[in-house]
Parts: sequence; C-alpha cells; structure tokens
Amino acid sequence: MSGIVVQNIQRAEASVIDGLARCGVATVHEAQGRTGLLASHMRPIYAGARIAGSAVTISAPPGDNWMVHVAIEQLKEGDILVLAPTSPCEDGYFGDLLATSAIARGCRGLVIDAGVRDVRDLTEMSFPVWSKAVFAQGTVKATLGSVNVPVVCAGAAIQPGDVIIADDDGVCVVPRANAAAVLEKAQTREAAETAKRTRLAAGELGLDIYDMRGKLATMGLKYV
Amino acid sequence: MSGIVVQNIQRAEASVIDGLARCGVATVHEAQGRTGLLASHMRPIYAGARIAGSAVTISAPPGDNWMVHVAIEQLKEGDILVLAPTSPCEDGYFGDLLATSAIARGCRGLVIDAGVRDVRDLTEMSFPVWSKAVFAQGTVKATLGSVNVPVVCAGAAIQPGDVIIADDDGVCVVPRANAAAVLEKAQTREAAETAKRTRLAAGELGLDIYDMRGKLATMGLKYV
Amino acid sequence: MSGIVVQNIQRAEASVIDGLARCGVATVHEAQGRTGLLASHMRPIYAGARIAGSAVTISAPPGDNWMVHVAIEQLKEGDILVLAPTSPCEDGYFGDLLATSAIARGCRGLVIDAGVRDVRDLTEMSFPVWSKAVFAQGTVKATLGSVNVPVVCAGAAIQPGDVIIADDDGVCVVPRANAAAVLEKAQTREAAETAKRTRLAAGELGLDIYDMRGKLATMGLKYV
Amino acid sequence: MSGIVVQNIQRAEASVIDGLARCGVATVHEAQGRTGLLASHMRPIYAGARIAGSAVTISAPPGDNWMVHVAIEQLKEGDILVLAPTSPCEDGYFGDLLATSAIARGCRGLVIDAGVRDVRDLTEMSFPVWSKAVFAQGTVKATLGSVNVPVVCAGAAIQPGDVIIADDDGVCVVPRANAAAVLEKAQTREAAETAKRTRLAAGELGLDIYDMRGKLATMGLKYV
Amino acid sequence: MSGIVVQNIQRAEASVIDGLARCGVATVHEAQGRTGLLASHMRPIYAGARIAGSAVTISAPPGDNWMVHVAIEQLKEGDILVLAPTSPCEDGYFGDLLATSAIARGCRGLVIDAGVRDVRDLTEMSFPVWSKAVFAQGTVKATLGSVNVPVVCAGAAIQPGDVIIADDDGVCVVPRANAAAVLEKAQTREAAETAKRTRLAAGELGLDIYDMRGKLATMGLKYV
Amino acid sequence: MSGIVVQNIQRAEASVIDGLARCGVATVHEAQGRTGLLASHMRPIYAGARIAGSAVTISAPPGDNWMVHVAIEQLKEGDILVLAPTSPCEDGYFGDLLATSAIARGCRGLVIDAGVRDVRDLTEMSFPVWSKAVFAQGTVKATLGSVNVPVVCAGAAIQPGDVIIADDDGVCVVPRANAAAVLEKAQTREAAETAKRTRLAAGELGLDIYDMRGKLATMGLKYV
Repeated sequence: MSGIVVQNIQRAEASVIDGLARCGVATVHEAQGRTGLLASHMRPIYAGARIAGSAVTISAPPGDNWMVHVAIEQLKEGDILVLAPTSPCEDGYFGDLLATSAIARGCRGLVIDAGVRDVRDLTEMSFPVWSKAVFAQGTVKATLGSVNVPVVCAGAAIQPGDVIIADDDGVCVVPRANAAAVLEKAQTREAAETAKRTRLAAGELGLDIYDMRGKLATMGLKYV
Repeated sequence: MSGIVVQNIQRAEASVIDGLARCGVATVHEAQGRTGLLASHMRPIYAGARIAGSAVTISAPPGDNWMVHVAIEQLKEGDILVLAPTSPCEDGYFGDLLATSAIARGCRGLVIDAGVRDVRDLTEMSFPVWSKAVFAQGTVKATLGSVNVPVVCAGAAIQPGDVIIADDDGVCVVPRANAAAVLEKAQTREAAETAKRTRLAAGELGLDIYDMRGKLATMGLKYV
Repeated sequence: MSGIVVQNIQRAEASVIDGLARCGVATVHEAQGRTGLLASHMRPIYAGARIAGSAVTISAPPGDNWMVHVAIEQLKEGDILVLAPTSPCEDGYFGDLLATSAIARGCRGLVIDAGVRDVRDLTEMSFPVWSKAVFAQGTVKATLGSVNVPVVCAGAAIQPGDVIIADDDGVCVVPRANAAAVLEKAQTREAAETAKRTRLAAGELGLDIYDMRGKLATMGLKYV
Repeated sequence: MSGIVVQNIQRAEASVIDGLARCGVATVHEAQGRTGLLASHMRPIYAGARIAGSAVTISAPPGDNWMVHVAIEQLKEGDILVLAPTSPCEDGYFGDLLATSAIARGCRGLVIDAGVRDVRDLTEMSFPVWSKAVFAQGTVKATLGSVNVPVVCAGAAIQPGDVIIADDDGVCVVPRANAAAVLEKAQTREAAETAKRTRLAAGELGLDIYDMRGKLATMGLKYV
Repeated sequence: MSGIVVQNIQRAEASVIDGLARCGVATVHEAQGRTGLLASHMRPIYAGARIAGSAVTISAPPGDNWMVHVAIEQLKEGDILVLAPTSPCEDGYFGDLLATSAIARGCRGLVIDAGVRDVRDLTEMSFPVWSKAVFAQGTVKATLGSVNVPVVCAGAAIQPGDVIIADDDGVCVVPRANAAAVLEKAQTREAAETAKRTRLAAGELGLDIYDMRGKLATMGLKYV
Repeated sequence: MSGIVVQNIQRAEASVIDGLARCGVATVHEAQGRTGLLASHMRPIYAGARIAGSAVTISAPPGDNWMVHVAIEQLKEGDILVLAPTSPCEDGYFGDLLATSAIARGCRGLVIDAGVRDVRDLTEMSFPVWSKAVFAQGTVKATLGSVNVPVVCAGAAIQPGDVIIADDDGVCVVPRANAAAVLEKAQTREAAETAKRTRLAAGELGLDIYDMRGKLATMGLKYV
C-alpha cells in the first residue's frame, strides 16, 4: 500500500485559502460544524504564525524521512506539507535544510505528527511548523512511504489538496470541496462576532445577548 | 448536586491580594507551608503575566461552557475565573468573546483545567490564561453545572473567594481566611531572600550560609 | 551507593566545548552517529539560548535538593549542572537563589530531569534551564545523594565532565574523550551543509543533490 | 501544616459501608450525582476485588513512606488507607510487610496516588490496592507528613472517615455525612436497573424504554 | 454535520469476517500492508477475547452517550459498536445495561476511544470491550451525534460496515471492500508461518531461514 | 557507532542468577542500594512470571527489528533479550515466531522499551515479556543496529551480561560484577523480613519494631 506518489492533486482556489487563513483555526472549525481539528498536542514552534494552504501529504515510516524529499518535488506555491508517520514517532524528520528546499518550492509551512529540529533556524527563517515534538533525533532514508495519499494526521483524516489552516490555536483541515462554503460561513460568523464583541465590551452579558435566562431557569438553575 | 449559583461570596482584602501577586507563586507557596499548588500541567498562554485575584469557581460538564456565561455575571473587579470540568476534558471552553465580556466585568484572568482558544487574541488583549491545553474544539450549552461551589482544579481544592496567584511558575491557591497571614510570611521570606541573594551573588556558598557542612558529614557524605 | 562527592573531574578543552556550542544540538548529535540525545521532554524555559559546558552531575532523591548546594561548590567556570532524580519527580529543585549562586561560580546553565521554578527571574538573569517541568513545588534537605557520579538523565548516560550541548532543539551529551573528534566531524558537516543550503535555496531538489531517484525506483516507488 | 496525626476520626455505620460495597463504584457514583470519582489512572493491582471502608488518610512527602507506619496505628477494623503524595510521585511506598501489618489492624485495602510494590505477594494475600503505578522504587523515612487530615487524592477531595468504595471500575469517595442517603439512592437505582435489565435482555430498546424518540426528533435527528 | 443516522449499511460476508477473527489482529494487520491499526492505548478489559465484526460507528459528543442508544437499534447479528468521541474524553459511555441491550441485538463487542464502566459485569457477561480507559464517570443525554458515519477512532479511519478485528494485541480495521482479499493473504501468511515456526522451534535461525547474512554483511555489520 | 555484534560476553554464575530470581525485583533493588530499576512503564504481558537471566542487549532503530534476528544467534541458555530503541517507539518488534526461535536458543524472556505483539500466543507459550506497549504494528528490516553493546533501556544503563531480574513489580538490572554480593545482601534482607513479617502479622507496629516514636517526636509530630 506504500510506495506511491500521486502527482496531480487538485487544490482549492487561492482566494478561498487565503480567506480561510484570515479567519483562523477557531472560527473555521466552528464554521464547519466543529469538525476537522487535529489533536491539541500539535503545537507551533513559535507564536504568531497564521497560515493556510493546500495539503501535500506524506505517509512515512517511523524514523525515516526519505519521502519528505520526494514530497518537496510535488510542492506548488502555497502548499503545506503534512506528515503522518505510520506508527507513533517523535523523531526530527525535518530541519533547516529541508525548510530551505521547501521554501524554494513555495511551501508555507509544515504540519507533522512527529518531531522537528533546527527550530531556532526555522524561526529565523519564518518557516512555521506545528509538531508533536521538538527533537533533534535524526532519521534514515531506507524505506518507502507514500506522497499525496489520504492520511490520518493527529487524529484528523486528511486528503491531499484539502485546505490546512494553522495558527496559535492549532491546526484544522477543511475538505477541498467544502472550502468555499466554509469560508462563507466563517466570514458570516466573524461579522456576527464583531457585533457581539462590541456589546460584550460595553458590559452586556452573554446571558442577555443570547437570551439564556429562561432556558437556564427551565433546566433548574438555582441562584442562592 | 449541580445547578447552583452562589451569589454572595466573600473575598480577601484587595491590598492583601495585590501583595500576594507581587510575591509570586513560588514564594507564596513556600510561605504557606508548600501547599496549594495546582498541577504543573497548568501553563500560561504567554510568558510574563503575574496576577492575583479572588476565585469565582465554575464546575462545568465536559465540553459544555454554558456556566461560563453564568459565572461572568458573578464577577467583581479583581476576580479570577477558575474552571474545573467534572471529568477530564481539553475542549476550548473560552475564547476572545468571553474574554471581552470578562474584562468588561473586571476579571483579571482565567485558570482552567481544560482548553482555551483564540490565544493570539487573548495575548493581544493581555488577558492571561493558565490552562491544561490550547485547543480550538468548541463546546455546547446543554447541561447545567454550578458557579461558586467548592471545586478541585488541577489537583488543588479551591473554595469560591480563595485567593489565586498565577505567574510563569504556575498557579497557587491561598484559602481566603489565611491570606493576610500568608502575605506576611511571604514578605518576610522575600526580605530574607534579598539578603541571601546578595551573599550568594558574591560567591558565598549555601553550604556555609545555611551551615550545612556539619549535618552533611554526620549523615555520611564523603568527598573523594 | 549514594553520599559521594567526586571533587576532581576531568573536563574537555574549553575551545572544543565552545566549538560544540556553536554547532548546536542537531549537528553535534548527527556528528556523533545519532547518539547522546536526552528525551524530548527536556524543554528550555526560554527560547534562544545555545550553550555547551562540562557536566557536573547530581544524583538526587525525589523532592530533595540538598545535593544542589553540594554540587555548586564543585562548579568551575564553564560548567553545566545536570540533575537526575533517583525516581521520577517534577518538583522545583532550583530557583533564582540557587541560580544566583551557580552564576557566581561560573555556571552556564542547568539540565534537570525534574522541575524548576522562578522561571521569570531566571529568564531575566539569562540563566538557561532545560527541564521536564516548570513547577513551584518546594523540596526538602533531608537525604543524601551524590555529586559527580555517572547518571542516566532523561534517558541518556552521562559521566561527570562529559560535554553537554543545549539549545532550542533540546540537550545532547558528548563523552569527554570524544569531544574533539566530534567537533571536527560537526564542523565538516556544517561546511557541507552550507553548500547544500545554497543549492537547495536555488530550487535544486534533494532528490537530485543526493542522487536518490535511482534507488527510489529500484525500491519500487511509483509515480501516478 | 504537616506533622499532625488526628487520632479520633468519625466513621460511617458499618452496615452502610458494607451496603455501599455491594453497590459498587459506578452505581454509587451515579447515586451521589456523579461526583466523588478518583481519576481513571487509579487501577487495581488485580481484578475482582470490591471493597468499601472508612478513609484513614495520609499526606506524605514524595518518596517518603514514614507516615504509613504512623497511619497503621490509627487503623480500625474496616478501614482503608488513602495516601496522597504532596507532589506527583510513583515510588513504591507500600509492599508486603506493610500489608501484613495493615491486615493485622483490620485494614481492607489501600488507595494510593503513587506506586506500590510486591504486587504478587499482595495478590496472594488478597490485599487489594488501587494505585497510579506498580513500581519497586523504595522510599526513605526522613520527613514528616500528616495522618487523618483532608487530602486531594487523584483529583478527589477526601476527608478522614469518608467512605471509600473501590472495585474494577476504580475508586469513589462518599462524604461520611451523606453515606446513608447515598446508599439509599444507590439501592433504589439498583432495583430500577434490574427491571430495565430484564427488558433490555428481551430485546426492547433503550429508545423506547426511556421514551427518547420524540426528543431526538425534536432535536433534529435524521434517519437516512 | 451531526444528527444523522445511516440505516442501511453494507457488511462483509460473515464467513470472511469469521475467518479474519481466526487470524487475529497481528496477522491481519501484516496481511493488509501494515495498515489499519488503532492506537496502542486501546486495551481490552479482559484477556483472551478474539472477535471480528462489522463496524456500527458512533460519533458522540464528549460525555454524552445518547447516540449509543440510537446505534443499538441499528445493530445486526455479528456487529461491533465503534465509538469515537468528537473530542478527547475518557468518560464511561457504556456499562452493563447497554451491554445487555447490545447483546440482545447480536452485538459482539465494543471498541471505544473513551471510557467504559461496570467492567466486572461485562467480564462476567463475556462482552469484550477495547477502550482508552476504565472510568465510572457517567454521561448525559443532551446533544446529538451521528450513527454510521465515517469516523477516526484512535487514529484509524473507519467506515460503517468495515470489518473490525480485536484481540489481546489491540484493534485493527479492514475496509469492507478489501476484506476477502485480506483474508486470503492472511491465511497464506499463516500457512507460511506454520512452516517457519517448526523450523525455528528446531533451533534454525531466522538469519538462515530468511537468508539475511549476506545482506547484513553488505550493510557493514561487524562481529567482534 | 552501530553495526556491531559483540559475540563473547561474560555472564554471572548461574546459581547467582537463579538466586536473584527467587528474591524478586523489590528485594534485589533494595539490596543494591535502591538502584537499577527500569521505569514503571515496563509492564509484564501476563501476571505471575518471575525470572532472572543474563542480558543480551539490542540497540535497534525505531520500527526495525532486524537486529533481533542477529541477537538470537548470540543467546545462550538462561539469557534474557533486552531491546532499547534508539529513539522512542512502541512498534511490535517481537511476536510468537521470534519467541519460538528465542526459546529454542534457551532464552528466558524479553525486556523491551517498545512494543510486543502476539501476546496471547506468548502467554500460552509461557514466554514472559516486559514492555512499554502491546502493539501489533509491524517493523521492517532495513537498517543496522548493534548487539551486546551498552544501552540505556527505560532509564537504566545496562551492559551486556548484566543480570536482569523481572517480575510483577517490574524490571531491575544488577551489574554482573556485583551480582554475587547483591544476592548475599538480598538473602540477608529476606531473612530479616521473615522475622519482621511474623511480628507485624501478630499486630506489633512498625513504629515499635523500628523504634520510630522517639525520632518522630523529635521531628515534631503531633498527635491531636
């Protein structure tokens, strides 16, 4: 089942992808019905990055980063590398040399359910990574995996070409076919939030804005 | 046992609370006999905050943030929200809208043995949070919990109105009735530490300052 | 087996140590055949530090920091304290007073498979620490351990006088006797990487630079 | 705050305690409003034990089991030892000698948020233990703790004399004052479950027995 | 995206399913190219069970077991319930009453990436469960999920009707369409293993049976 | 540094090894000054085994069990295989075929800081294993490791030929050169424990047997 590189994957519209980046993970996740989040152990190596891009997926054996080289050739401007090891691993599959190469091919960042290293260099290069671990442990190049096949990464099912959104809150995947619709919902949601934010900042309570008092009383909430 | 909101809780003196904030978690914890620390998995979303305030406690079902809205109405200037889920959970109960509302009611921060989201916004708003996870996972509003009841949060027993101190070292609770006495001990401790710091900086050894050599020899320590 | 302080340990050449610091953890680890890394749970309390030094080792009982005081007397300019508890522990063995004392004795940092506290102060003092936890929990001074004996710290066997390298990628140990040879290999590696970095930045692929296409085809990689 | 042994604690009625044992953890926990469970990391050393007893609590320093000896003198027939370390620890505080002594004083078992050893012997002796770890690591006797003071054990607040129920599902605490009332609710619950069990075994659905179909439809559940 | 119950799912042939059960998890997993394993935290509540069946999937909110009742109506003889919470949770969604009901509908077992309770009763009933936790924590029935939709359970993507194999080694999923082919490969593998087992039991070495010595020498293995 | 097989290792006396097995892990660990324990995550696949043997060590890449085949050739009657992966891994390196082979060469068991599979078969064969995980995940045979080199396994430094003792309490290593002396101390300890056990069983208190009351009073213990 491994040893396959899918070369021509479909991607969402660039404007949709960039719109999703601006909304951020929490809003996009809500907009698509609270689905698509990767597990909370996926943390950014530095604070402040917020990106979106098309997933170029890598299924890699534990401790073997050969397929990362293969995947980099498949990158197009605006893509994000997504690596899922075939069994749990925290080795450092990726460092500053691979980042240099990925950046040269237009890559916006890396999402890896394993380890990353050279994080000081990556930070200086502004190449954002969301990973399970920071670990200098090296890898070999001895066994095949696959590129651009469906993967489960940190608990989320990801197809190549799906839209990945990542920021300080973590990582979310939006199926490519739904991207435009999700963006629309996310933007609607943002607009609604702006109005609510103003009212809340003025001291109004969510209890009143969302009209919760009646339902709470019905459910039996008692003030003592 | 849930479905209760206690409205009139007692709080410690503002000057005592602010004094404890200045001492910080490590000193306060020592001053009250090495008790009251929350578990080390409670980490700040950004470095550098150091706060103290009165606990407004929330006992919430997993994945349900309804009671946060109820609790915000109970906040007074200088309070800190303390949320303990009724079973282990890392969902993102709290984000920038709730923070906007909490700030409008005078809240100084959030301590939550679960997840938080919108951490980039919260950082920009300088609203500090100590949490078990950063996770964009949304919550529902379907089941009652309680506000201002005793909780166990991250391994520490907390009563509403107890003083919470939080900084880069973690979170500590001081029972309200002990707050003034603990502050006094903490300040005494700080004064003593200043003197010791000067001597240590000059190269004197703790072995001599604390007169340990004799006891170490008695215990059998051998230099080879 | 405890209760021993070894006073005269051998150290590597200062120039070798400083050379290893400049190479950083990931490069040094590769240069010595992918050995010597401490576990990935050893994280720095602040980003950006990169140090190397000679290990002054501490074997300490859980929750007892007495031996830290004993170890500080053994420090020489350029040393790094390495503390391994005799059973798993995350108590805060070390804070700003001990750091003041360690700095006064020439210490460059602390590597501790347990907890540390006063991290805001330590950050301001630019005293770097790599630890398993940040935890304000205090310790006692009641039971002997040993100083400058062999330890296993975070999964790595460390002898007193071995060279410790630590940066944002974690911590690596180089046996003292190998330090010069490892440095040479690390520098060779760095030089080679510089050349590769330039080619990769220009868009050349690792597949071509490392001549991987043939072997991948032989192994059965299929492009579809 | 440590160094205290409370000698005369109150206990619940023996018949109430034994009744709670027969109900088991899951039923008792439900009967008291889903409160009082210890964390799920508290696992039995062997399957099949189901006990209840009065808590004799121990607050002990990490890696120091001195207070266990002190606590054993306080045991009365039907008691359960409950040990909470003052910071996270998995050392083996307790083995077959202490079990021999505890049994001689009428102790029914041990609940410990740390480690236990000699588990083969304990199993042969039918002395049940619920613990966080099985670990042969020995402890010292150097620092005081307390006996029969309030503790937080594995996330649950426990007072001396509270009723502890433990079985293959884990451990639950019932405040002493509530024990009789909780038993009554638990027994009512059990009776109701027996009737339901018969209907479910006959193939009736919970959807019908609990009359859920209407509410599910109202909430929008769609069958496709 | 939730609130859906798919009623007519397709299942694999009963004889294929039963054949896969006889092969066991490790063999089936190898036979399908080392894919389909659920994470190793999925442990059986008792040793010795080995089952296979068709997945009836449940996507459930954290701490809410309402959908389990809905799913039980969808069970056919030989099915296995597979529950994936929408965010990490270890609550006890399932106990002896639900097991009674599931058994009455022909269910062979439960695979749940959360908690289970009443494990003593379930063991007596010989109803096997593979779970992330044993935890008596109760759940509510307040929020919709879905039944027979695709889920990611413990890191594996599972479609309703896929074949689940579970034994003491853990849990594996085989896509329904591949089940017959995988069975054939698994049986071929088993036959081959029998022959090898005889030779290995006689003292022959894998080095010789698999003809490894040449390749090891080529790779540089040195005997000293 | 890898790719080495050391063929002639020294072993301790068979009678010493067997004596240590009879003492068990907890006693041996105490007898050698509370050192040598492997981490508590090393759990037996079935209860009741108690073995000792000489360590044949394996340093293996993550997810690659090639060196196990190499190591089996090095086994002598009474040996125990000890596998340490070069980075954290829970793959199933070992199953019933390898066990068949190992048993044919006189092997008494396996200690592995990674995964094991076919545990039902291994249990039926009475081949005991202490592991970090039970996981059916297969491995490859692509990269060299080493056999009979020093390793750190689950936090303990182990030399080839050291004595491994393993039972339900976990795993302990005794350096070969110390084995006879440790056995003597362990047997002395056992004899002393037998006498104490009788007194404790008769209801005497450890407080009196160990003469602790005076020291406790001096330390300030208060009975209230």
